Amino acid sequence: MTLNILFSDRDEAWTKWEGPLRAELHAAGITANVHRSYDTPQSVDFVIYSPASPLQDFSPYTNLKAVLSMWAGVESIQDNRTLTVPLTRMVDPGLTEGMVEYVTGHMLRHHLGLDRHIKSSGTWMPKTAPPLARNRTVGVLGLGALGAACAQAAARLNFDVHGWSRTPKSVAGLTCHDGEEGLGKILSLSEILVLLLPLTDQTRDLMNAHRLSLLPKGACLINPGRGHLIVDDDLVAALETGQIAHATLDVFRQEPLPSSHVFWSHPGITVTPHIAAETRAETAAKVIVENIIRAQKGQPFLHLVDRTSGY
Amino acid sequence: MTLNILFSDRDEAWTKWEGPLRAELHAAGITANVHRSYDTPQSVDFVIYSPASPLQDFSPYTNLKAVLSMWAGVESIQDNRTLTVPLTRMVDPGLTEGMVEYVTGHMLRHHLGLDRHIKSSGTWMPKTAPPLARNRTVGVLGLGALGAACAQAAARLNFDVHGWSRTPKSVAGLTCHDGEEGLGKILSLSEILVLLLPLTDQTRDLMNAHRLSLLPKGACLINPGRGHLIVDDDLVAALETGQIAHATLDVFRQEPLPSSHVFWSHPGITVTPHIAAETRAETAAKVIVENIIRAQKGQPFLHLVDRTSGY
Repeated sequence: MTLNILFSDRDEAWTKWEGPLRAELHAAGITANVHRSYDTPQSVDFVIYSPASPLQDFSPYTNLKAVLSMWAGVESIQDNRTLTVPLTRMVDPGLTEGMVEYVTGHMLRHHLGLDRHIKSSGTWMPKTAPPLARNRTVGVLGLGALGAACAQAAARLNFDVHGWSRTPKSVAGLTCHDGEEGLGKILSLSEILVLLLPLTDQTRDLMNAHRLSLLPKGACLINPGRGHLIVDDDLVAALETGQIAHATLDVFRQEPLPSSHVFWSHPGITVTPHIAAETRAETAAKVIVENIIRAQKGQPFLHLVDRTSGY
Repeated sequence: MTLNILFSDRDEAWTKWEGPLRAELHAAGITANVHRSYDTPQSVDFVIYSPASPLQDFSPYTNLKAVLSMWAGVESIQDNRTLTVPLTRMVDPGLTEGMVEYVTGHMLRHHLGLDRHIKSSGTWMPKTAPPLARNRTVGVLGLGALGAACAQAAARLNFDVHGWSRTPKSVAGLTCHDGEEGLGKILSLSEILVLLLPLTDQTRDLMNAHRLSLLPKGACLINPGRGHLIVDDDLVAALETGQIAHATLDVFRQEPLPSSHVFWSHPGITVTPHIAAETRAETAAKVIVENIIRAQKGQPFLHLVDRTSGY
């Protein structure tokens, strides 16, 4: 049987994905059409999907078996009522590795105070070695695949790592907290705080003035998670008072970040253009094809979205 | 028996070391005087020494058992002919940890291209994710305690790590090279090169125009080793042609780096003020006292300098 697979994303993505997808399907012995549109939507078996795709109405796809997202974040699609088949999110090993490298790099940058040397004033500064990582407490909010991997990488560098999740979790190498009380605790400890939470009704605007005030004075913030986790004006106010020393932000309420946004010109903010978590077609295509195989065999999907919790 | 220990370093060092040293001696049950000078040099048993100390003539210290350096680098003292007793160098676990953090931080900084975001132009840059660390080759010249620890930390971050030493060595997690032929090989591979060699007649001026030309075009250099490993003018010339994309330097032929030096103003050079390897008195005092215990028991010293090889 030949499967019909719809690839629904922009041109650039097709250029990157077509080769790896066809190679993985071939390696798995799957005979499939992979097209960017079908005249007969009812003939489509699987949609390989990006939330940036114009496809928002799934109702013509009456024989669909699953929608396989190429993105980790599916909040823009998970409430779509026309989508009534299983939705899987991407947990790409390459994406996780890239995220760990981004977070570790910026964590060490803030830990070591690299910026003052990178933007050097041209004078030999007095020796002021930072504390060792073992004497630096870092916190990671969110202990999903990405948060747990980043927290464990920090622990391997000797940081005193704390993690937080909504419900209790246990991750080797770190001290885990949960719930509202645990959130207050981890915030009070974290000299460097990393946000890797999904965006849900519970996490939207999480880092507001109150929660920012719970951090140790002069804390640094790294947000490669979701822009809506932070109340922008509250962050700017906390930077003005020195409560927050620096924020490195990869995600924003509006992307690209508008050129008029105060984040661009604020000396306490580093903007990176949503590059922390890039899905790598070479590693991600394997995950997509694995889920097609599982669907064919009636096995449970990998990374199935629980559409009641939102991730 | 009460030992007489001479602490020979500047005032700032005494302030940092006195407490930890007395605490470790006490913990070891050793009764000792620890003074910054003695009227009778022949009564001194041990000198705890910094190569920055004015003490250069050891001949009056006729009953000396050992000179215990608080520094890792002993090249300025190891040829001193008045020093005829065992000389030990510092291998401080705290120093090693600090060095690993410095090297890992700058390695990730170059790997991820952080500077363009830190010095942001205020425009949303097109997505250009760096390769994953597993597809980035880094080289570490020098596989002593510091080089091996930095190389292994890089390997734990998935970098493709190569190491080089004068004589053959084997270090888990990396590909080891040695000798002149191995040097050509590792230089040809290293997109990021870390210099952690001791300064000897063989390593002085190692990174000259020829060896810099062997690196892949656009390589980055990190030198927390010794300033004399690099020929300054050849490095500047290699930066001008783009052969070297960036150099982060922590050590210099003259320190503090003179304000007129071209390194200060060169956009391709980051200067850090000899902060990569700071001996931490808390951890290093344990090592000094351990060697005093060993001398008392007639056991071999830790980190004894082989004064024929120079380290």
